[in-house]
Amino acid sequence: MRAQKIPETSIVRLSMYSRYLGRLVQRGIITISSGGIAEGVGGSPAQVRKDLAYFGEFGTRGVGYNVKDLHRHILKILGLTNEWPVVLVGAGNLGTALCLYRGFFERGFRIVGVFDSDPIKIGQLLGEQEILPLEKLGEIIKEEEARIGIIAVPGDYAQETANKLISFGIKAILNFAPQAINVPDDVELRNIDLGVNLEVLTFKLTV
Amino acid sequence: MRAQKIPETSIVRLSMYSRYLGRLVQRGIITISSGGIAEGVGGSPAQVRKDLAYFGEFGTRGVGYNVKDLHRHILKILGLTNEWPVVLVGAGNLGTALCLYRGFFERGFRIVGVFDSDPIKIGQLLGEQEILPLEKLGEIIKEEEARIGIIAVPGDYAQETANKLISFGIKAILNFAPQAINVPDDVELRNIDLGVNLEVLTFKLTV
Repeated sequence: MRAQKIPETSIVRLSMYSRYLGRLVQRGIITISSGGIAEGVGGSPAQVRKDLAYFGEFGTRGVGYNVKDLHRHILKILGLTNEWPVVLVGAGNLGTALCLYRGFFERGFRIVGVFDSDPIKIGQLLGEQEILPLEKLGEIIKEEEARIGIIAVPGDYAQETANKLISFGIKAILNFAPQAINVPDDVELRNIDLGVNLEVLTFKLTV
Repeated sequence: MRAQKIPETSIVRLSMYSRYLGRLVQRGIITISSGGIAEGVGGSPAQVRKDLAYFGEFGTRGVGYNVKDLHRHILKILGLTNEWPVVLVGAGNLGTALCLYRGFFERGFRIVGVFDSDPIKIGQLLGEQEILPLEKLGEIIKEEEARIGIIAVPGDYAQETANKLISFGIKAILNFAPQAINVPDDVELRNIDLGVNLEVLTFKLTV
């Protein structure tokens, strides 16, 4: 029920707050105001308070938030106190970049399998991961209890890759292929088209 | 003024509509309804009509939209009837993937320079691009009249890279570094944190 009520933009901002708070923890900062958080991530204090209010009462009027407590609490809200095994399909340039992306690892995401259909790539190493044939997908998903899949295949193969992941029990998909895909209602999906981001910029430059 | 009034989410959807319409053009489809577009991209007909209405009257009641005209019109709105020279700083895995990402090229984005500070990388080829030293950044931006810069450097170097790009006249930045940056008001910025996308998924899986 909670997921329906909270806008996705708030979740994205929570994720940003938690990164900022993580840095403050490292620097030994004890308390911070909503204004301080807003300044750190580039937002407004009212927005920070509203985002946090979705999840209950934090902070003390006039004192602010305890940095460590708030950090831990947001990580918990985001599900980041668990480790998340993730499978990645597509070992091209983008797949390679994603597989080696430290940001995932630092936040508790662990790539437990990288898959490709290209016989030349199969058996090669990406970091510590050996590239596996697609035939192993179901086995690894089951063994590692992965619920998240990343798609980094060419557009034409995106939908069939998604179907395969879902048939093996994947419940959330991050799709980097330049092609929108469809998934059943009980599967979470984010389509990431890197080109769209540039186009928001050119729209603004064109105005 | 237009940019202030139109929500960014609508621009993102326009970008998606244009991709879908482009495929319909290739398949020789002449007209389409708002319902058809909505189905093609995974949205609602009312949303499609609302997004398009920001930019004037399209389509004929009972007939729908002319696919070719609407496609061309949206590309124009997005600024994609021009070619956009883009500079890319950071030739690591992500930079490499971005440099070779066909989706950019297909939509009129042309990478005119790839830059890195690592002496080992300088002089190597990424596709047809030779990796250049950072010292050449200003020269290439000027020569190619680039107004868009992509940052794919480690987080600790993101802000100084942005400052450099801006000092050389860049007006829009796509930041892939896992660190938020600040830019002056007259510079457009999109921070892309690939981890945030996974965290929206884990939030939903955690609920």
